[in-house]
Amino acid sequence: MIKGSVFLNEARNKLVILDQTLLPSQTVYLELDEIEVVWEAIRALRVRGAPAIGIAAASGIAVVCAKSAKQNYNEFLAEFKKNKEYLETSRPTAVNLFWALNRMEGVITENKDRSVIEIKSILLDEAEKIKDEDALVCKRIGEYGFGLLKDGWTVLTHCNAGSLATALYGTALAPVYIAKEKGFNIKVFADETRPLLQGARLTAYELIKSGVDITLICDNMAASVMEKNMVDIIFTGADRVAANGDSANKIGTLGLAVLASYYKIPFYICAPLSTIDISCKSGRDIIVEERPADEVTKMWYKKPMAPDEVKVYNPAFDVTPASLITGIITEVGILKPPFEKAIRKIF
Amino acid sequence: MIKGSVFLNEARNKLVILDQTLLPSQTVYLELDEIEVVWEAIRALRVRGAPAIGIAAASGIAVVCAKSAKQNYNEFLAEFKKNKEYLETSRPTAVNLFWALNRMEGVITENKDRSVIEIKSILLDEAEKIKDEDALVCKRIGEYGFGLLKDGWTVLTHCNAGSLATALYGTALAPVYIAKEKGFNIKVFADETRPLLQGARLTAYELIKSGVDITLICDNMAASVMEKNMVDIIFTGADRVAANGDSANKIGTLGLAVLASYYKIPFYICAPLSTIDISCKSGRDIIVEERPADEVTKMWYKKPMAPDEVKVYNPAFDVTPASLITGIITEVGILKPPFEKAIRKIF
Repeated sequence: MIKGSVFLNEARNKLVILDQTLLPSQTVYLELDEIEVVWEAIRALRVRGAPAIGIAAASGIAVVCAKSAKQNYNEFLAEFKKNKEYLETSRPTAVNLFWALNRMEGVITENKDRSVIEIKSILLDEAEKIKDEDALVCKRIGEYGFGLLKDGWTVLTHCNAGSLATALYGTALAPVYIAKEKGFNIKVFADETRPLLQGARLTAYELIKSGVDITLICDNMAASVMEKNMVDIIFTGADRVAANGDSANKIGTLGLAVLASYYKIPFYICAPLSTIDISCKSGRDIIVEERPADEVTKMWYKKPMAPDEVKVYNPAFDVTPASLITGIITEVGILKPPFEKAIRKIF
Repeated sequence: MIKGSVFLNEARNKLVILDQTLLPSQTVYLELDEIEVVWEAIRALRVRGAPAIGIAAASGIAVVCAKSAKQNYNEFLAEFKKNKEYLETSRPTAVNLFWALNRMEGVITENKDRSVIEIKSILLDEAEKIKDEDALVCKRIGEYGFGLLKDGWTVLTHCNAGSLATALYGTALAPVYIAKEKGFNIKVFADETRPLLQGARLTAYELIKSGVDITLICDNMAASVMEKNMVDIIFTGADRVAANGDSANKIGTLGLAVLASYYKIPFYICAPLSTIDISCKSGRDIIVEERPADEVTKMWYKKPMAPDEVKVYNPAFDVTPASLITGIITEVGILKPPFEKAIRKIF
C-alpha cells in the first residue's frame, strides 16, 4: 500500500504532498508553507480525495499559522479566519475541507486563554491528530467492507478513493486492502474516470504497487462488464453525503449506481462520518462544481482531440440518490436504508 | 454537412477516404488501390461507421479488381473471393462489410456470361450504387427520425453515426440534419466516446461545421445530464442488429440505454436495413471485437496516463438488449417492439 501522500514534515514547518497530477509517471513530493500554494494544490488536484483534502487543509493552515507574526490572540484568530475562508473556496464540494478547517478553528477558540505560541503548537498537533484518526477510520471502513466480500470476488470502483486519497487504506479501496492482508484473492476493475483519469493514473498505480489484480476499463465499459457478470460488488467513495443518504461523488458515480441497480449488483458508498453533512437535507442542497472545458478537450493530449470551438459541459461530480445505494460503509458500521433514520441515529 | 468521406475518384481507379484518425486537426484524403491498404484503413478506423465501411469495402475491392491481370472468369472470381475473405477479417463486428462484399460477389456471379472487362466496370458501378443508395437510405432515416423531434429539443448521441460514417446525413445524426434543414432549433449532447473519442473528434467536428449547437461531455456525464432533464431523446447508430432487435454498437451504448430506461428518455437505434443481420438470432450470437490496451492507456497522451504494467479490458462494442430500445429507425419506417415480429415482417 502507498503510505503517505499528505503529511507534515519532521520539523513541522512544511506540508508535504505527493503531487498526484504527475502520477503515474513521476513521483514528486512538494513542500508547501504558503496559503496561496496550499490553495492551488487543492484546487489543481495535486492533493485530492475528500479525507486527504481535509488533512492537507488542516496541516496547511497549521503550518501557515505557525509562521504568523501575530502575537495578539484576536489578530491571530482574525488572520486564521481570513486564511480559512480563502482555503474554503478551493474545492466547494469537498465537505472535509470545511469540516477540517472548522475543527482547527474550534481548537483556537477552545484555547483562547493560552499564548499564541502554544496555540500554534496545538494546531500542528491537531492536524496530525486528524491524519492519525483518518488512518484509523479508513481501517475500520475497510474491516466493515471486508465483511461483505467473498474470496475470489471482483470489485468495481470509480475514481480514486484509495490510500492516495486518505491518510492510509483509502475508503472504497480499504476493503480490498484488508482483504489482501487477510489472504483473500480479490480482483478489481477500475474505471479510468474521465476527464482527469484518477482511476487510470491513481487507482491503477496504487493497486499495482500493492500487488492487487487490477484491470482498467473506460467508464463506458462498466455496463458491459456488469452485464457479463464480471462484477460482484461496487465500492466508491463520496465527497459529501446528505442527511438522507444522497451522495455526491466523482462524476460517473450516478451512472454506475443506476447500472448496478439494473444489474442487481450491490452498490456501496464508503465514507467516513466526516463526509456526512447533516446540514444538507438532500442531494439538491449539494453544490456541484463545474470545471474548465480544457480538462476534457486538451489536458492530456499531444494533439487536439476536439475542435477548438467546441462547447463543453464539465461537472466534476454527480449526486447518487439514496434509493440507488445499497449501504454506506462508515467507521461505525454499515448504514442501511432508510438512511435518513440511520444517519439521524448517529448524529 | 460534411460531404463525402468515402468515394471513388473521377477516374474510378482509386478509393478516396477522408482519414478520420487525423480529425479534427488535419483534413487528409487518402487514395487507395491496394487490398492490404484498404484492409488497414478499415482496421485502423481511418474509415469507420457501418455504412461507410460497406462503401469503402465495395469501392476498395472494385478498384483492386479493376487492376486485376486475370482474364479468365474463374481465375478472376477466385482472386475476388480471396480478397473478399481477407477484407472480411478487418472488422468482424461490422455487418455492412459482409453485406457489401456479398453484394459485390453477387454482381460477379450474375454477370458470369460477360467479359471480365465488362464485369470490372459493373463492379465499379455497383460500388457507386451502394454509395448513392446509402445517401438515400440515410435521408429517409433522417426523415422518419425527424418525425419524433420537437422544436427546441436536445438529442444525446454516442460515438459518430453522422455524415462521416455514411455516404451522407449519417444515421443517428440524420434526424438532426433534417431538422436543421427544416429550421428546427435542435441541440446535441455528444458523448466523447472513449477510448477513440469519435464523439469528441468526429461528431463535434461535423456538427460544428454544420452549424448545429453541440456540447461535448465525457461518457460518464450522460447520467448527470439525463437526471437534470437536459436530454429529450437519444439516437445512436448500430453496427449490427440481431433478428430479435438486440443491437451491437460502440461500447457505451448499452450503458446509455440502461440510463435512458431509468430516466424514461426515449432511446432509438438508427440503422439501415443492411445493418440487420437476421442470421443472428439474438445479441448472444454477435461477436464483439476486443481491441488493444494501448488505445486506452497510450494512444492519445503526451505522457503516460496509466502504469505501463496495467491490464486493460477493451471491448469495442456492447450489445443493447431489445428490451431497452424504444424503436429502430430504418429507411422503411420506425420498427417498434416486439422487434422480432417487426423485423420478420420486413425480411
